[in-house]
Amino acid sequence: MTNRKFGKNFPPKTIAIVGVSRNEILNHPGYTGLKLLHILQEGKFPGRIYPVNPKADFIEGMKAYPKVSAIPEPVDLATITVPAALVPEVLEDCIAAGVPTVQICTSGFGETGDEAGKRLDERLREIALRGDVCVIGPNCMGFHVPSARMQMFENVPLEPGPVAFLSQSGGHSRTFILNASHMGIGISKVISYGNALLTDAPDLLEYLGDDPETRIICMYLEGIKDGPRLFDLVKRINLVKPIIIWKSGHTYCGARAASSHTGSLAGSNEVWDAFFKQTGAIRVGSIEEMTEAAMALLRLNPSSGNRAAVLGAGGGDSVAAGDIAVEEGLTMPPLSPETRAKLLEFVALVNQGISNPLDLPTAFGYHTFLKQTLDLLTADPVIDMVIVRLEAEFFKFREAFSAIAEFERVILSKTQERGGKPIAVAVTNTNKVEPSEPHARELRQKGILAFSSLRGACRALSRFAAYHRFVRESSATP
Amino acid sequence: MTNRKFGKNFPPKTIAIVGVSRNEILNHPGYTGLKLLHILQEGKFPGRIYPVNPKADFIEGMKAYPKVSAIPEPVDLATITVPAALVPEVLEDCIAAGVPTVQICTSGFGETGDEAGKRLDERLREIALRGDVCVIGPNCMGFHVPSARMQMFENVPLEPGPVAFLSQSGGHSRTFILNASHMGIGISKVISYGNALLTDAPDLLEYLGDDPETRIICMYLEGIKDGPRLFDLVKRINLVKPIIIWKSGHTYCGARAASSHTGSLAGSNEVWDAFFKQTGAIRVGSIEEMTEAAMALLRLNPSSGNRAAVLGAGGGDSVAAGDIAVEEGLTMPPLSPETRAKLLEFVALVNQGISNPLDLPTAFGYHTFLKQTLDLLTADPVIDMVIVRLEAEFFKFREAFSAIAEFERVILSKTQERGGKPIAVAVTNTNKVEPSEPHARELRQKGILAFSSLRGACRALSRFAAYHRFVRESSATP
Repeated sequence: MTNRKFGKNFPPKTIAIVGVSRNEILNHPGYTGLKLLHILQEGKFPGRIYPVNPKADFIEGMKAYPKVSAIPEPVDLATITVPAALVPEVLEDCIAAGVPTVQICTSGFGETGDEAGKRLDERLREIALRGDVCVIGPNCMGFHVPSARMQMFENVPLEPGPVAFLSQSGGHSRTFILNASHMGIGISKVISYGNALLTDAPDLLEYLGDDPETRIICMYLEGIKDGPRLFDLVKRINLVKPIIIWKSGHTYCGARAASSHTGSLAGSNEVWDAFFKQTGAIRVGSIEEMTEAAMALLRLNPSSGNRAAVLGAGGGDSVAAGDIAVEEGLTMPPLSPETRAKLLEFVALVNQGISNPLDLPTAFGYHTFLKQTLDLLTADPVIDMVIVRLEAEFFKFREAFSAIAEFERVILSKTQERGGKPIAVAVTNTNKVEPSEPHARELRQKGILAFSSLRGACRALSRFAAYHRFVRESSATP
Repeated sequence: MTNRKFGKNFPPKTIAIVGVSRNEILNHPGYTGLKLLHILQEGKFPGRIYPVNPKADFIEGMKAYPKVSAIPEPVDLATITVPAALVPEVLEDCIAAGVPTVQICTSGFGETGDEAGKRLDERLREIALRGDVCVIGPNCMGFHVPSARMQMFENVPLEPGPVAFLSQSGGHSRTFILNASHMGIGISKVISYGNALLTDAPDLLEYLGDDPETRIICMYLEGIKDGPRLFDLVKRINLVKPIIIWKSGHTYCGARAASSHTGSLAGSNEVWDAFFKQTGAIRVGSIEEMTEAAMALLRLNPSSGNRAAVLGAGGGDSVAAGDIAVEEGLTMPPLSPETRAKLLEFVALVNQGISNPLDLPTAFGYHTFLKQTLDLLTADPVIDMVIVRLEAEFFKFREAFSAIAEFERVILSKTQERGGKPIAVAVTNTNKVEPSEPHARELRQKGILAFSSLRGACRALSRFAAYHRFVRESSATP
């Protein structure tokens, strides 16, 4: 007998929340049942919600039930928030009621490292494997499904789309939801599965591989129990749906924190290095990097290479730009002689430079120069993609408003060219005068692929190119 | 004969600007003489300024002179902005007038890579070595000396202090001035020396080594002509005044850009690795990293080690924090058993953790908990420094205002403890809800050592500890 496969009656139409008190416990550090109820209501969840509390008849005007098996219709999802010691009994009742999916929010199990926690783990495992139930958690936040108006946190956007996120951490799930919205990426499913006592990353990944709503899969992993199964699934699914993974706990100290956080064993770096090399999954180091890579994969057509041209203003910053682009895995060939010759027809080399990276202040003052330069760069056969770097300070000055409008118009028209090469804007804030992120976000909302740092842009485009190269080479091999 | 040693009559009391037109040339890409005149006026330079223009008697109400040798008093500094081809003649005239320091702003010399530029370089070199003059540049921005009310750019702060910056790049000089102000660091001298045709980094470093106003020296290098001399100077001066160096152009592409920017040869990575290892100079990769390291060195007493405790809220973020701290060179020992036992007297382990990094949401809600926790961490003999990480979102909510005031009060009182261990706050913006830099800046203005990212904080503190370890070990060796 095994843990039931995830996905029956999901997304749910009926949800029981077990452990809803009549009054919120002041400043409770975790998420209480009442809070989860309010969160579902805030999102206008269209299904039916059943609060479960053996000591109350009504909670906030809703009828309460003493246990899940007393609810008068089939329950698709039960969310457990009662103290750890009471969880086994509630789980038994959920099984008796035929609930297909049980999410255990409660913490205080194996992750504490003590004997009582480990014994509770054993009991849960034994109960779950006897029944026909899929258990998510414990120590988890559960589900965020915008298309079903299910949300995991208060005050978060509910924007449906093709990107999924699997995470042992609830905090990172919230960060992902907020970052994705910021990047203009819609979400299919976010699943926070905590300690992964029974349902682990491979089970959920398998579900997302078949989920028609999901086109890109992001994962935050602290540890994994069945490495070979994860490997096989990632290797297969990644060729169809790009998989972006943040594996944390790769230092001794992160590993110690992972053990205390979700009771996970982080695994050796060598194993993970081989994992990424052989599966072709995209390895990232933060939620920001994850959503930046997802944005590039979502917005750009498959690219044939990683040869970039970087266009900006400022000599010292151009030297730094060359270093950053190469550090992040892009190659930067010199422009072809034809491109150089054509550039020199309208570019003076006083305080400017047309080696790659290009240092061309005039391109940012005169939109016709910018257009001509971008036309030449994208037409150059040695260039696969163009990154335009722009200091956020540029947006600050009133007199620059018309220049910015022209800049945006030129970039957008180049972006929309049929079959055009990728063009990205990196808004930088090297001088600390003006934060870059709000301006990058505005550009994104206008349809431009924009990043809030040059390193972020180079990193995402490099990963984007590496992914497509891997897929191409894999399909070429018999 | 050699290039005159830098420093005679510096800072200058009289400045000639050669090449001041009566009207600004519209949208000139570089800095014109008239612009430099306006910049000095904006800063209320207290000395005398002489515009030089053979075709004008008066410029903006000031008497103009046909050449430097026609100025009726000794000139301490001549700034040349005429076109490249005219520069040799002006330099001859400056020598005839006995000007000790000549700064050549004009570009279009060796950095263009063409023969005409190289020939001009040769002529300048030959003229300068015949005369008794110190030539800075060409292709440079010159001097920013707040204590002498000399500024290099318009709209930049003029805040005197103990930190100097040497830079081949004018753009990076501006970025440094803006970043330093943001970090609360006062400036002694910024010198932008461009192509370094005659006066190179070692000459200026020697000057700063003897400059009583300067206690920390920052350098941006693209290349260097006399490596052994730089090595000897850095090795000696760094033991007295910390030297922080950003060596750019360490990739093939950055090196190509450096050659086009200031005509510099970037040199091999192996040589530079050895340079940093043997001199103990602090190696950084951007102006931001440079000013963060300078801030830590300036604000903290010499530290005995790099064993950090990191305190924050959130399990997933704690795992990431452990990885980041170790990646940046800090060590993070488990807390001593006594500290753990005392923490457990008031910390519940539900959704919290006291492995290092510590995951303690309650410490951010209750200032007495925060105070107790910090007291225990700083008293722990295995801990050298404490980093408190705080998401910028925390500052966003009205209801958190009193909590923030209490947070600041506790951190500040711990910071001010006599002989206390270093305490830094890392304001983070992992969820993109609120930029971190403005809040970090506010904390700095209140006297707290604050960074705008956890990586920035760990990196700066790691470099701070490594510097003091190097100095200690060097003085222990005979």
